[in-house]
Amino acid sequence: MKIAERIAPYMKQVEGVQQTGLYAYFQPVARSAGPVVEVGGKELIMAGSNDYLGLTHDPRVVERAKDAIDRWGTGPGGSRFLSGNMTLHDELEERLAAFVGKKKAVVHTTGFLTNLGSIKSLMQPDDLILFDKENHASIMEGCKASRARITYFAHNDASEAARRLASATEKHPEASAFLITEGVFSMSGDVAVLDELVKLKETFPELIVYLDDAHGLGVMGSHGRGTAHHFGVTDKVDFIMGTFSKAMASIGGFIASDHEDILAFLKNDSKTLIFSAALPAASAAAVITCIDILEKEPERVERLWEVNRRARRGFKEIGLSVGENDSPIIPIHVGSELKAMKISRELFERGVFALPAVYPAVPWNHALIRTAFMSTHEDKHIDRVLEVLGEVAHKYGICTQDADSQGAVAPSDQPGDVSPPAL
Amino acid sequence: MKIAERIAPYMKQVEGVQQTGLYAYFQPVARSAGPVVEVGGKELIMAGSNDYLGLTHDPRVVERAKDAIDRWGTGPGGSRFLSGNMTLHDELEERLAAFVGKKKAVVHTTGFLTNLGSIKSLMQPDDLILFDKENHASIMEGCKASRARITYFAHNDASEAARRLASATEKHPEASAFLITEGVFSMSGDVAVLDELVKLKETFPELIVYLDDAHGLGVMGSHGRGTAHHFGVTDKVDFIMGTFSKAMASIGGFIASDHEDILAFLKNDSKTLIFSAALPAASAAAVITCIDILEKEPERVERLWEVNRRARRGFKEIGLSVGENDSPIIPIHVGSELKAMKISRELFERGVFALPAVYPAVPWNHALIRTAFMSTHEDKHIDRVLEVLGEVAHKYGICTQDADSQGAVAPSDQPGDVSPPAL
Repeated sequence: MKIAERIAPYMKQVEGVQQTGLYAYFQPVARSAGPVVEVGGKELIMAGSNDYLGLTHDPRVVERAKDAIDRWGTGPGGSRFLSGNMTLHDELEERLAAFVGKKKAVVHTTGFLTNLGSIKSLMQPDDLILFDKENHASIMEGCKASRARITYFAHNDASEAARRLASATEKHPEASAFLITEGVFSMSGDVAVLDELVKLKETFPELIVYLDDAHGLGVMGSHGRGTAHHFGVTDKVDFIMGTFSKAMASIGGFIASDHEDILAFLKNDSKTLIFSAALPAASAAAVITCIDILEKEPERVERLWEVNRRARRGFKEIGLSVGENDSPIIPIHVGSELKAMKISRELFERGVFALPAVYPAVPWNHALIRTAFMSTHEDKHIDRVLEVLGEVAHKYGICTQDADSQGAVAPSDQPGDVSPPAL
Repeated sequence: MKIAERIAPYMKQVEGVQQTGLYAYFQPVARSAGPVVEVGGKELIMAGSNDYLGLTHDPRVVERAKDAIDRWGTGPGGSRFLSGNMTLHDELEERLAAFVGKKKAVVHTTGFLTNLGSIKSLMQPDDLILFDKENHASIMEGCKASRARITYFAHNDASEAARRLASATEKHPEASAFLITEGVFSMSGDVAVLDELVKLKETFPELIVYLDDAHGLGVMGSHGRGTAHHFGVTDKVDFIMGTFSKAMASIGGFIASDHEDILAFLKNDSKTLIFSAALPAASAAAVITCIDILEKEPERVERLWEVNRRARRGFKEIGLSVGENDSPIIPIHVGSELKAMKISRELFERGVFALPAVYPAVPWNHALIRTAFMSTHEDKHIDRVLEVLGEVAHKYGICTQDADSQGAVAPSDQPGDVSPPAL
């Protein structure tokens, strides 16, 4: 089969890494208590989960999810369009819209499907899309499927976005123009310069801003209302997309807007909504319960930041290069892919679960260890992570004070411009 | 906003239907007992669910789903690639592979994501895809994303597929050629002529057959092992894809194959796997329990067919045009879109939940009412459906013996060739 020949070089690489024992991915978690998980009979401190608020184990969330199974069953039995829509989904849409400060929301079964279906429904072949180079794969997939003209701008660079928008709209004055950015970028943890990006509307009043706030929802802004709320620019963001698989203890995604007519259109047009089974009742009920908790208990979000800052401060004291962002994600810049894999493996062996992000997820030779902490981490968990990390980091010389440090490698502003040596 | 003008004509149509009170979709189910559901304070017999075996309410499935929530939490906290992989997912992959008779399987979070990610990983721009015209939207999305050359063949027409394959491979002798079909087509209920399609391999030994068995899994073949098993051609089908949102009481999807190397590649390459949160523990545990039940209790599948045949026989006695397939889906051919919507509405008001499939899901003027029954339907449920349907069908004159019948309208062999009058 020709396909076997085609994949051979790729698989040789993967197998090469696997043989070194450094392949870090698809670790089978045997049980999870949130901040502590079990893998291969061994307990590890989880330092890389997106369950930022630790709500996947909250007794209220768990109970409501189970009740929903009793009331609707384990599976939806169909798409929302046909037999799978539940009063739960309608309620969830209302609660989400109110939570992020928009009039209406539409729920899909995953975040990937939300971006793919929504972007394809909203944007057409003649449209312009201003696209941050670090945007998530699901955004890229939606943009490609829409066949709109994609114009990339350097990561989080509002002035380059402005220049590219000016030149693109001059060339295509009749086109609708969209700008798509994440609120908190999933790998680097960078918080979008959303305040600067929405200012482009002063010069281009017809610009439509689409925000993927997967990693900002439940974390950024008061009560975790998201990155737009954090910057006070909710009214300037036309579409807020978010997912439930991070702080919201579930899976699924939504898109919210004050353009109710457009969302009504999308609900009848999005292929990934019409042709996918609905979000299971347990998953939908979990999200509603998370919104209840977030509205009532802002201290949960505050605790996340306390934990996060304790870790970040500790990383800096060790001498690690972690950047200055107030973000739920703390990347430890390493540089070499091999070194990042070795460090991750050694952390794992010493009881800390934190995985490397290597090329092509980041530019070549800008590998990092992606860490993220949870409201439910106790101080002793963080202190233990710092203790282990301090020893491992010095061993591999990635601290600023180490003689052979490669530690302070900043991520490229132009992801994808730096490539690995030819194989 | 220009987009508002663009969607106006479409929304006018949707609103037109909604104003007539005939808009049938997104019915909010307030609770479900399986064969009976509650909508708007009213109990209805569910005659259109994909929960073919009624396992979403099986106490064993429910219990295992709840236990999984206790052990892993309500949400996965990450993609399988990073922090969200569970021993459950690995176990599920092993069980699925054995169940459908393949060496290896890879699980994604939904069926749509399985097709999109797998097809895009497997097929490349220079490849050829032989595509049944009735294939599901998720298959289409994957094929478009792969940018391979798509060649359509008339629905379920193996000889046209052969002709088109011959001509395409003559033009592109170096290309890898794939044939993609569903096992049981989701709207018409047609069972694929899979035995004839795999015979194409006798003339084209390099042809790769990809089967989407979403509606065949759990239903077709002994123990519900699927459509390939039903025809005894499992070894001739290279890739078997299936979903858990039909008979398997859950959501999610998988792809199985004896080409272990290719699936290993896919597991590291599929964007929809790497960049989507993992299937929640409750959903994965539900599927494993369904496989346990299917392996032990073939009578459950047999009961489905008993119920299904009782309904089909009754439909024919009423004089309805329902086709001759042994399929879990029984389409009642109506013809006019408006009539199908009216019939569905009247069934709904009289306690039967069965929705219309209208253009563009089917060719214009070939609207149908899509019915499907479950192992857990009691005979009295079916008899009640037949009673109501008999009265409504005669009222709208869609029975063969009715003077003004349009009932015996067979679906077009060329979906999409028959279009509605211009708006």
